[in-house]
Amino acid sequence: MAVSLVILTDPGDARTRRELTVAAGTSILKAAHDGGVDVTATCGGRGRCTSCRVKFVEGTIPPPTIMDEIQLGDDLVREGYRLSCQCTVTEPITVQVAPPLEERAFQILGAGPGVGGLGVRIDAGIAKELVKVSLPREEHHQTSDLEQLAAAVGVAPESVGPSVLVGLPQALRDDPAGVTVTTFTSGSTSGGAAAGAGRTVVAVERGDTTAMKFGLAIDVGTTSVVTTLIELESGEQLASVSSLNPQAVFGGDLMSRIAFAQFNPINLRKLHTRIVGLLNQHVAEVCRASGVLPKWIYKAVVVGNTCMHHLLLGIDPSHVGLAPYAPVMRHAAVLPARELLLKIAPEARVCLLPLVAGFVGADAVAVALATRLADSPALRVAVDIGTNGEVLLGSRERLFACSAPAGPALEGAQIRHGMRGAQGAVDRVTIDADVRVHTIGETPALGICGSGLIDLLAGLLDAGVIDWTGLIRVEARDSLPPALRDRVAMRGEERVFTVLRPGEAGARAEIVLTQDDVRQVQLAKGAIASGIAMLLHVAAVPLVRVEELMLAGGFGNYLSIASAIRIGLIPALPLSRVRYVGNAASLGAQLCLLSEAERARADAIASRIEHVSLAAHPDFEQIFVDAMNFPRD
Amino acid sequence: MAVSLVILTDPGDARTRRELTVAAGTSILKAAHDGGVDVTATCGGRGRCTSCRVKFVEGTIPPPTIMDEIQLGDDLVREGYRLSCQCTVTEPITVQVAPPLEERAFQILGAGPGVGGLGVRIDAGIAKELVKVSLPREEHHQTSDLEQLAAAVGVAPESVGPSVLVGLPQALRDDPAGVTVTTFTSGSTSGGAAAGAGRTVVAVERGDTTAMKFGLAIDVGTTSVVTTLIELESGEQLASVSSLNPQAVFGGDLMSRIAFAQFNPINLRKLHTRIVGLLNQHVAEVCRASGVLPKWIYKAVVVGNTCMHHLLLGIDPSHVGLAPYAPVMRHAAVLPARELLLKIAPEARVCLLPLVAGFVGADAVAVALATRLADSPALRVAVDIGTNGEVLLGSRERLFACSAPAGPALEGAQIRHGMRGAQGAVDRVTIDADVRVHTIGETPALGICGSGLIDLLAGLLDAGVIDWTGLIRVEARDSLPPALRDRVAMRGEERVFTVLRPGEAGARAEIVLTQDDVRQVQLAKGAIASGIAMLLHVAAVPLVRVEELMLAGGFGNYLSIASAIRIGLIPALPLSRVRYVGNAASLGAQLCLLSEAERARADAIASRIEHVSLAAHPDFEQIFVDAMNFPRD
Repeated sequence: MAVSLVILTDPGDARTRRELTVAAGTSILKAAHDGGVDVTATCGGRGRCTSCRVKFVEGTIPPPTIMDEIQLGDDLVREGYRLSCQCTVTEPITVQVAPPLEERAFQILGAGPGVGGLGVRIDAGIAKELVKVSLPREEHHQTSDLEQLAAAVGVAPESVGPSVLVGLPQALRDDPAGVTVTTFTSGSTSGGAAAGAGRTVVAVERGDTTAMKFGLAIDVGTTSVVTTLIELESGEQLASVSSLNPQAVFGGDLMSRIAFAQFNPINLRKLHTRIVGLLNQHVAEVCRASGVLPKWIYKAVVVGNTCMHHLLLGIDPSHVGLAPYAPVMRHAAVLPARELLLKIAPEARVCLLPLVAGFVGADAVAVALATRLADSPALRVAVDIGTNGEVLLGSRERLFACSAPAGPALEGAQIRHGMRGAQGAVDRVTIDADVRVHTIGETPALGICGSGLIDLLAGLLDAGVIDWTGLIRVEARDSLPPALRDRVAMRGEERVFTVLRPGEAGARAEIVLTQDDVRQVQLAKGAIASGIAMLLHVAAVPLVRVEELMLAGGFGNYLSIASAIRIGLIPALPLSRVRYVGNAASLGAQLCLLSEAERARADAIASRIEHVSLAAHPDFEQIFVDAMNFPRD
Repeated sequence: MAVSLVILTDPGDARTRRELTVAAGTSILKAAHDGGVDVTATCGGRGRCTSCRVKFVEGTIPPPTIMDEIQLGDDLVREGYRLSCQCTVTEPITVQVAPPLEERAFQILGAGPGVGGLGVRIDAGIAKELVKVSLPREEHHQTSDLEQLAAAVGVAPESVGPSVLVGLPQALRDDPAGVTVTTFTSGSTSGGAAAGAGRTVVAVERGDTTAMKFGLAIDVGTTSVVTTLIELESGEQLASVSSLNPQAVFGGDLMSRIAFAQFNPINLRKLHTRIVGLLNQHVAEVCRASGVLPKWIYKAVVVGNTCMHHLLLGIDPSHVGLAPYAPVMRHAAVLPARELLLKIAPEARVCLLPLVAGFVGADAVAVALATRLADSPALRVAVDIGTNGEVLLGSRERLFACSAPAGPALEGAQIRHGMRGAQGAVDRVTIDADVRVHTIGETPALGICGSGLIDLLAGLLDAGVIDWTGLIRVEARDSLPPALRDRVAMRGEERVFTVLRPGEAGARAEIVLTQDDVRQVQLAKGAIASGIAMLLHVAAVPLVRVEELMLAGGFGNYLSIASAIRIGLIPALPLSRVRYVGNAASLGAQLCLLSEAERARADAIASRIEHVSLAAHPDFEQIFVDAMNFPRD
């Protein structure tokens, strides 16, 4: 169905009005680009910035997505602002492109006016002020540079970070304008001194640098690491960089990485050094991209699973890998960047969100925070799909979490022709009379990535190529349509489905799905499905009571929800109740970076989460066996 | 005069009774050694240990010295215990050698029973306890190793030093006996969290190591550095090592060292690295000598002047060397050893005593503490003689301090044939008809050290070789006794007094005193004398009201008090009112190491000291000119 989309670039100038006819379901951003209307999309249309914002002038305003809420805030959302990359055209509408944002109008997950709203004001805890410090002129004085500074700022001398002292005398004497003092005021309720409570001076710079105030949100995953640079006054994302976790060369999944470090301090040190080194590369990259100096970064919030957290701090994770999987520490830690050797302001506060258990880490806490799982009366599920995923189930009443270690199969690892979701990866598969594929970047097919695998299996199940136990039914090939039949074969002992022959979709070599590949995907999806099932079981609630299932994690964003339900990766909920929430762990880190109140909430959430250990539960085995199989249609 | 000394090595066995006849004024220790009685003197008879203690059985018990009080404590002193190295024989006495010490009977500067006593109980703030930590057994647990430990010890998880976490999981699981937890409880009243207030876990060790509890008292002087290893339960000195400060290669006196570092971060780093490196050498040496492991050292107290303090912390001292000589910080700092890269327990607390001003440092505070200057109703003076000395004047009412930079002349530097007080140095000089000398170790004379110089000048003044302005009176040589006359000469433009000709006192080459040497000593003694005079002037008290003058510093111990008065280094007080108090700065550090109450007192003393800046005072010039001259007899 075609619908009308009217785009205004300047409402006061009729000449800027463009009327387009677009296919229903197209995003406004794509429709605009296809129609030749220039809409800026700094983040590439991923809902990570505000540059592609539009304001609805006519037509029904769609409900906001979580990215709308996070990037635009409640006030703008209520005023009809939306991100054009997140919003699809379903009926005739008129929108204005990039209406100006009022300064300081930003809010994160902005609240309605009532009690229990989600109102979050930006308050990163970092304040800068230009201070004139009076220095002694008489030799008989009894004071010091530090005491004069502390008095001018209104803190005790002990509250000034030791690295600040190194350049202090020069800074105080260099510029008649004064010095710019940066303080951090912790909003964390837990912990005492060590957790960074109170007001701390984290930097003193000559002259007026009050305009420069930046922070980092860092998501350290087993497979990939994402660092985002954010302006702390406006909340604006300035740059974001993501890389593979370089620890992976010492073990792809958590258990092999723990085994590498286990009772081996030298290997532990290697893992620690790798991740710190990568974070410093990230700092250099986001600073280069944005023109921000590293010394202007005064706060960082880090989330990650328990093992990543321990390795970052150089703490032995050996016993995280041994029953009963006890973490070494769990509380929210705040430490100066110099102690981590992180090359930002030496006294910048690095805040690690708290952990829950050996396999339910700060990333799960961040997901719970970003999805507001603990705030709503409705029962909701959040699934962070990843090598070491987590499942959360809860509402305002109770919160449950378990680990769901999918392993790397959905990242394309341990799959014959698997690959990551990069250029040339088959990411969409449709099967009717034959196989049809889409590749990322629409370039020649090189392999198949996780979302492609899930589509493929869903299609093969529907077509009857695979049965509910996962067997590739070579014996039944003759009942298949001819084009499919020719793709099913025994090769020696191995059952194989040929997805692409050389030349198909530009593939240079054939791309196949083996029986083993199917088993790997079954293990992966079984881990997640059994996690969801177990939490429902422990919480004693039927699936129908789940009002929403949120897919988090980078991978979740590319998944076909229908295919995921078809293979039983997620339970058979109505499609309308399932939505993508992006990298919720990273978003949780961003929330805590921009709001100390949110960081305090993360503490409260961590202490509320009830950890469910799957393997220790007597009913787990049956649940897992069921979850490994595909739903019988 | 000869007197009788009876020594009992075992009072129950008459055969151990030895009766000696000794010259009055001999120390009991020397008399015993001369008489062939074996008395242990671990510290070499310097009042630094308790091994040579005796108990008076018959005869008058002499008043205790400060070393008696510090080493033996008030209880033992009252019972008639004395250090035989500190106590001279003046009348017939009977003493018992090395009577056993009751366990835990030690006190430092022990108090009388009344109000205002000096009672100090050993309480280093370091406690060790054997703890059994219960670990989770169920996978459903929601705890961590750290939380279990913290609960068992009774602290918050945030109070556990981060380095402790590194080995924690292994330690908790290794030994069924449990773990030994070391905590530090600060007694400091000043400062908040950053100063280490509250109870902190500084180490966790597998098994029972409760018996191992050690600390370091460190005195970082401009010229020399003294590190003492002390058992924290008994207060016993186990080892002590002293070295030249290796920063001296970059500048002998403070000002040249500051100039080296001034506005030059690389040079600052060199000075910082040198001193940290030396302290780590000292740690290795005292540990080797005592068999103590560095990881059992949980506390260190550091004193030093402001510049040494800043350099140790890596803080730029540039402005300490520029009027108005402002220090960068002054408050008592407590930091973990790892931050200083000091190779003891990583979380050991390194306590730096507070500073007063740019040239009145933590060493002056330590001297004031150790001498109880601020406690007594009597007005007393403490003089720390050193390259960068300090003078303190005070009583319970007020406390004044100034710097008295004698320069290195009294250490033998900038003197033609000067040398340090080492083997072969002329350390005693008597002048009657001719010159008579004593050398350290009674080995051939190599040069002349500070105490020898002062004796020499005193003798030359008495003999009329030098006049009150310091001139070597070549013109008046004919009025001298013949032997002296032949030693006075002009050599070219230079006035010279020949102390030793080759062959005299084993000297291989001649040792002379030049006119310039006299001027150097005048500058040095003038600095100290004018400091004393200025404090009296500012406090508006006449000299006669000074009830005691205490000579502190390594050098002070070897000085002839009569000679020092003769040349005007110290004012003309009756000899009975002048006494040596040893390295009082180091003793002050030891007090604070062994007692957190003392460390808190150091804070209070620092805030009470009134800093007097000499050069800034209008009357200084006249006072200094007077002080440069010798007293007219």
